[in-house]
Amino acid sequence: MNKTIACKVIKVVEDKSYDCDELLVCEYSLTIFLNKKRLATLLCSPEKLRELTLGFLRTERLITSLDDVLNFNLDEEKGTVEVETVNKDASRESFFSKKVDLESIKGTNTTNVSGAQNFLNEVNCEPVKSDICLDVNKIYAFMAEDLDYSVVFKTTGGVHCVALCDSQKIKVIAEDVARHNALDKVIGEALTKEIYLKDKIIILSGRVSLEMILKAAKLQIPVIISKSAPTSLSVALAKKVNITLVGFVRGNKMNIYSNAERIKL
Amino acid sequence: MNKTIACKVIKVVEDKSYDCDELLVCEYSLTIFLNKKRLATLLCSPEKLRELTLGFLRTERLITSLDDVLNFNLDEEKGTVEVETVNKDASRESFFSKKVDLESIKGTNTTNVSGAQNFLNEVNCEPVKSDICLDVNKIYAFMAEDLDYSVVFKTTGGVHCVALCDSQKIKVIAEDVARHNALDKVIGEALTKEIYLKDKIIILSGRVSLEMILKAAKLQIPVIISKSAPTSLSVALAKKVNITLVGFVRGNKMNIYSNAERIKL
Repeated sequence: MNKTIACKVIKVVEDKSYDCDELLVCEYSLTIFLNKKRLATLLCSPEKLRELTLGFLRTERLITSLDDVLNFNLDEEKGTVEVETVNKDASRESFFSKKVDLESIKGTNTTNVSGAQNFLNEVNCEPVKSDICLDVNKIYAFMAEDLDYSVVFKTTGGVHCVALCDSQKIKVIAEDVARHNALDKVIGEALTKEIYLKDKIIILSGRVSLEMILKAAKLQIPVIISKSAPTSLSVALAKKVNITLVGFVRGNKMNIYSNAERIKL
Repeated sequence: MNKTIACKVIKVVEDKSYDCDELLVCEYSLTIFLNKKRLATLLCSPEKLRELTLGFLRTERLITSLDDVLNFNLDEEKGTVEVETVNKDASRESFFSKKVDLESIKGTNTTNVSGAQNFLNEVNCEPVKSDICLDVNKIYAFMAEDLDYSVVFKTTGGVHCVALCDSQKIKVIAEDVARHNALDKVIGEALTKEIYLKDKIIILSGRVSLEMILKAAKLQIPVIISKSAPTSLSVALAKKVNITLVGFVRGNKMNIYSNAERIKL
């Protein structure tokens, strides 16, 4: 499917106008049915839909590997995907664990970033263990590569880009109108390629929301690097689950928010 | 509550590092209970929480005015708000109308922006009727004012800003880590101030997602102006429901995507 679509627009410069063709980023609606029950409808970019579905199921802890998937039927025309898994009972409960996660974060409504007792237990994540060490110059280089990739972003201004790397190079990259979908696509593609995640790095073109850290924590991914700003809860969670969080990577500058020992200066 | 919070970061410039205090944008979790049932947990910026709650209930069509609210009990410490409404039965069904909306959009998975039969009926919105006419120079001015407002954005880079205007000036303005919350805050504040919405304009600092147009359509707001890009479904829905959509307002330039008759050059 096309990632962009031509659209007639009226361009205005000061008080003069003219007709023009402009590219829009395509938004697509994908409804996931798990074991014949409707699970979720994702508004997404129409590419890597198989990866998106698998990554969504993986980060929601409904599957752990491709072996858990018995049948997978994607209908691009209708915007539906039907997935049958080995463990039919896993569905509802695990899906709502996401809501429980968010609910449990209530305890962190404090202005003290390091506050919030029992927070880690409540979000149900083990602290991330990893000896990965990443050279600071590699981070500058990744960010440049990452941005180079996104032709759609350059032409339409409307997508987020996420990459999965080891300490040397980018392994998987995806983009989407929603940042959490872009991450799920990367996770799904890693799943299909059997890429081990616990020593990898996630690079984001956009802001770091709490959900991004939650997803990374669930999968035990040790390093998250963003071109943009993290929120207070993102930093709090990254510290708690032992994730290295780097933000505002721009040109030859960056901020390290947590677990700086994994970054080699 | 504080909108930003100081955080120790390690700043890196090239391969040199130093410790530094940086401001983070605060993220807060608010759980809404409607008529004693848990309705939703919103991750948001900790200000205008009453407006956020009322705006969320309004755009989800669970209330139409303040008269529908019998009791309102916000606990900022716990991050909860309990709302009791006159019509107790409205809750579940109306809330899930949002999912039905998204579900119904499946039919628009086409590369033809103007395609998708029955789309308008399915999203359950009347076409917006309004004779409002907005001067193009006013749009440039609004966008400058809008950005001037957001001190938090300037210091942390992490929030979206939404304003509600008439053809002359900004009436209500709000910011949030999530763009849909910022819009709900503006709607909620308009509700408490009894501002008539059907001749107003929404100005967004960020991208125009489909949800923003859906919310505006539900409330019959005729004009949406953004500093950034709309998606294909946003443009499709704006055309269908007769909303004027303007994007990429930067300096003295802009793109008009739909219903240009409301913009006076």
